[in-house]
Amino acid sequence: MQKRNIYLDKIPLDEALEKVLDNFDNNYQMSETITEVIPVEEALGRVNAKAVFAQNASPHYYASAMDGVAVDVEVTFGVSDRNSKELIIGEDAFFVDTGDPIPKECNGVIMIEDVNQINASTIEITKAATPWQHVRNIGEDIIASELILSANTQIDPAEIGGLLGAGITEIEVKKQPEVAILPTGSELIEPGSQLKSGKIIEYNSRVIANQIRKWGGKPIRIDKVKDDFNLIREEVKYLSQKYDLVLIIAGSSAGSEDYTSRIIEDLGELLFHGVAIKPGKPLMTGIVDEKIVVGIPGYPVSAYLGSLLFVKPLVNKFLGLPVNQPLTIEAELTQNLVSKLGQEEFIRVKLTEINEVLKAVPLSRGAGVINSVMKSDGFIRVPVLSQGLRKNTNVNVEIKGEVDYKKNLLLTGEKGIVFDLLKDQAKLSQDKLELHLKQLDNSSSLDALKEQSTNLSIFKSICDKEGKNREIITNEIQQIIIINLIKANLGLAFKTNNGERFNSLEDLVQDNILFINRPKETIERELFDNKLQKININDKLIDGYKRTENTGLGVANLIKEEMVDVGIVSQGVANLFGLGFIPLGRANIDLVITEFEFKTDKFQLLLEVIKSTEFKDRLTVIAGYDIEKTGEIIYRK
Amino acid sequence: MQKRNIYLDKIPLDEALEKVLDNFDNNYQMSETITEVIPVEEALGRVNAKAVFAQNASPHYYASAMDGVAVDVEVTFGVSDRNSKELIIGEDAFFVDTGDPIPKECNGVIMIEDVNQINASTIEITKAATPWQHVRNIGEDIIASELILSANTQIDPAEIGGLLGAGITEIEVKKQPEVAILPTGSELIEPGSQLKSGKIIEYNSRVIANQIRKWGGKPIRIDKVKDDFNLIREEVKYLSQKYDLVLIIAGSSAGSEDYTSRIIEDLGELLFHGVAIKPGKPLMTGIVDEKIVVGIPGYPVSAYLGSLLFVKPLVNKFLGLPVNQPLTIEAELTQNLVSKLGQEEFIRVKLTEINEVLKAVPLSRGAGVINSVMKSDGFIRVPVLSQGLRKNTNVNVEIKGEVDYKKNLLLTGEKGIVFDLLKDQAKLSQDKLELHLKQLDNSSSLDALKEQSTNLSIFKSICDKEGKNREIITNEIQQIIIINLIKANLGLAFKTNNGERFNSLEDLVQDNILFINRPKETIERELFDNKLQKININDKLIDGYKRTENTGLGVANLIKEEMVDVGIVSQGVANLFGLGFIPLGRANIDLVITEFEFKTDKFQLLLEVIKSTEFKDRLTVIAGYDIEKTGEIIYRK
Repeated sequence: MQKRNIYLDKIPLDEALEKVLDNFDNNYQMSETITEVIPVEEALGRVNAKAVFAQNASPHYYASAMDGVAVDVEVTFGVSDRNSKELIIGEDAFFVDTGDPIPKECNGVIMIEDVNQINASTIEITKAATPWQHVRNIGEDIIASELILSANTQIDPAEIGGLLGAGITEIEVKKQPEVAILPTGSELIEPGSQLKSGKIIEYNSRVIANQIRKWGGKPIRIDKVKDDFNLIREEVKYLSQKYDLVLIIAGSSAGSEDYTSRIIEDLGELLFHGVAIKPGKPLMTGIVDEKIVVGIPGYPVSAYLGSLLFVKPLVNKFLGLPVNQPLTIEAELTQNLVSKLGQEEFIRVKLTEINEVLKAVPLSRGAGVINSVMKSDGFIRVPVLSQGLRKNTNVNVEIKGEVDYKKNLLLTGEKGIVFDLLKDQAKLSQDKLELHLKQLDNSSSLDALKEQSTNLSIFKSICDKEGKNREIITNEIQQIIIINLIKANLGLAFKTNNGERFNSLEDLVQDNILFINRPKETIERELFDNKLQKININDKLIDGYKRTENTGLGVANLIKEEMVDVGIVSQGVANLFGLGFIPLGRANIDLVITEFEFKTDKFQLLLEVIKSTEFKDRLTVIAGYDIEKTGEIIYRK
Repeated sequence: MQKRNIYLDKIPLDEALEKVLDNFDNNYQMSETITEVIPVEEALGRVNAKAVFAQNASPHYYASAMDGVAVDVEVTFGVSDRNSKELIIGEDAFFVDTGDPIPKECNGVIMIEDVNQINASTIEITKAATPWQHVRNIGEDIIASELILSANTQIDPAEIGGLLGAGITEIEVKKQPEVAILPTGSELIEPGSQLKSGKIIEYNSRVIANQIRKWGGKPIRIDKVKDDFNLIREEVKYLSQKYDLVLIIAGSSAGSEDYTSRIIEDLGELLFHGVAIKPGKPLMTGIVDEKIVVGIPGYPVSAYLGSLLFVKPLVNKFLGLPVNQPLTIEAELTQNLVSKLGQEEFIRVKLTEINEVLKAVPLSRGAGVINSVMKSDGFIRVPVLSQGLRKNTNVNVEIKGEVDYKKNLLLTGEKGIVFDLLKDQAKLSQDKLELHLKQLDNSSSLDALKEQSTNLSIFKSICDKEGKNREIITNEIQQIIIINLIKANLGLAFKTNNGERFNSLEDLVQDNILFINRPKETIERELFDNKLQKININDKLIDGYKRTENTGLGVANLIKEEMVDVGIVSQGVANLFGLGFIPLGRANIDLVITEFEFKTDKFQLLLEVIKSTEFKDRLTVIAGYDIEKTGEIIYRK
């Protein structure tokens, strides 16, 4: 029997963070290696460790602030338009350019524009000068021994100028931590390798390395190690001696080959294993050789979030930056979120303005869906003592960085080629528009529009039944506009190199043919059921009839991976995957939008994109898409 | 007679920018060298040039989402607490860890927590499983051939994970431009060199190099070139062939050695010379060898701003980022700003909340004061067709980056050692507090408090006249609190190694002694005048009596540079500069604050700092500062 870990003693996030930061103070803060002296010119973004005082003034001499002539202003007293005066160059007056020193005997500068040059040695002036006019005082910018930079100041380009100008060329700054990242797991393969069942592309360490790079630390990615207690142990021991922080990815869960906690206990001290967060629950930290070691869960979103919550504060500590000050934006939640009491859940959201209200739209909650992090603008926290959040309440969104949500336009509907091309074309031709899709079925997509939780909806209908579908829409929502995106052929797709196993609808009932269906109430299902009725096939005889897949692309993927033999997709998708195709019927793919949203600048920009020849050209490359009415308003009420 | 440039044909900023960006499109956009293919792992922050579609699904096989046992769920139907069932490992059930593939014959996973292991080959289950439970679907995260990244998307760590997971290891991105920076001027010396009159530390190229680095470009700093037409010309010719952009610093003004515009005309085409902005007016751009060349003015703030306004948009163009979207924050202007019609002026401001209103406080407007850029949170624009902005109106502040203005606490008063130490100590011990000083004399400092354009004021008074001064304050403002910062000795400072020229007050009337005074209505002036009266010296006999310097540190700087012999400073400043000191009297340096601001968290944090032994210890190192009442409320009304 294999030994399995338990980590039921989860502790709250706050407590976990406090433990880690206390240990930072104990193990690193006193260490002299936490600062280093570097050239000022290379100090961009760094934080100085001690107050810096100016070594010299700037300017350090009386300097001309203008191009002109320097004079002792007494010689100009009484001069005016009517009473001009000639001055001798080199005796009464001295040419100076901006920045030139003022001769000792002078105390003012006359601008070149106010000087008439009579000959090489004589000028005429027509205005009196006041003492110290157009002269930059010593220390005008910086006074010697004034405070240039207080401790703990992050250095920007202007600071580099100020420091150099004040005679400072080297500066003591907080050190950038070297963070070792060790991916573990026998299932891991390198990016670019041949894929095999059970093998996973190792990208967590690359994501975390780039997070650390972005935060200002120095990531050191270590080669992956297979699930072997001793190999991982030796590696961790070595890394903790060499680097400032050690991250061990995966092996933190309850699996039979999850060794991380035992290795930390063996080499040092385990601070905790298990945090009351979702995703990220199996996270752990410990101390090995006076260095902090973080065990990061292997699910991509857990790894991303675990690193954000625990590694970023540590990197900030090293850099001398405030530990935690997430940027937040307040927005209205578009749906109820149920969450388990006793865990703090992090929900990825997209921000968009709907009907002039900023909304936070929840995305996928799966711990494996890195896509949801890519597409999100940030996340909201469901507190540990809450069972969820109610829709239409305001929530604080912790944004990923600078988010330009004014650009965002959210669509609901089916993920697919048409949306992908539209999104890409919009990004190419409009820099004030960014499309996002929340995958929803036809009727939920319409509900979202009704509840103002999307800017617009993609709606599919069978061409023969346009009227009926329009009725469904208009019964639900007032004042809407329907715009055609494309018309498409829907049908059965199958691998053509699959021997002679599947060729016609009748083959569906064969024993060796595995079908995958589309969900109930989709038009694909409706077309398929109609067809079965027409040719008199009992659906009970079709292997896989009850199993469904949400999107056409998903169906094509399953056929490509040979997990199923036949499914319903659009002709465009079948072509894209090189699949055989038997048509079942024709569909409109339309956009449904309210009058109010229709008039927004953002939607008008989208409409330009839809009507553009660039977009239409890309659509027509894919056979079966009919662009005859693309961009046309086909209904308005 | 030397030839001088004229650049009176200034064009508006908008027009200038449009010209530059049009030229970018003409000269670079079509070029194939504007993109490059790089490894995905190194693409952080880069912008992809073309849409990227997934090469494989993720997961690409049916994977267990849990640690547990995989089963064909049919064998579990009917199982319950009361009707448990035993399964044989390797026949009915298969141990799987998270991420493991599901055996072909299975279609569900039972969590390890719900499994009782009876012996090595048998387990017991007490719950039925539903089809596909705890199984990650193929394409759950990413579907093969779906759009992973639309064109023009900036790549964040999560995107790197998504791309690698989708089988993409290389990506075509926009190129980072190589920007050559050429400082010109015979007056320039390298940082760290011995200072001489007329020589200027060359730091503009370092500031601009770091701006470019921060914006994501690759700066190449070229060695400075003296003011020689042919040398600069050769350098510009070479650089424009080798790099993507060329910046020439200085030589753009009307000085006799300002060659930049003539060199651009000689080598290529001058697009414009002179922009209607302040600072930065002499800025020019041109085309040499199909590359854009920017002539950047030499004054530090002009250089900083010129680079921000013209080089940043070009760098963004190369990177594929939106050209111009400054982050702005709305705030209330604290003072009237007069500006010349026909030029767009950029005013540096500090943000602070006063009486719960966010205010924008203008800083120095000098083009030479890089310090004002360092201290600012951003700038406001006075439009080209405006003669100024009125106080108490709302303005848009274009912030430098992430600004945490909630931390800011603004003081008005005299720049000096005590404030510097307080600022530094606050930054060291409080991470939610940052002090800033606007240099104002005693009575203006009080006005600022009255007009709610500062959080608090530093106020100096002569110790013997405390009552009188308190009267002045309380007549002006209601409900105030006065807190002592220190008591200090004020007196005459002089160089002790100045032979026997100055030893006592009576020496002030000697011919070879140059004095510098403090402004009228300062307590330093009052103490000095009282003393002169007492010992019967006529101020007309004192050389320099009429010339004034605002701060004690400024006076000490002038003595140190041997520009003057004697001036009035505090004993602390005299000690810091190793100067001789003859006391004139004793002063209170107090903080004056309203009841409302006193109660804010920020001020209470400051009070903690003032009362701390760390701060007091630093004060007592400087002789002459009396900390007996430091931090005490000495008056409240």
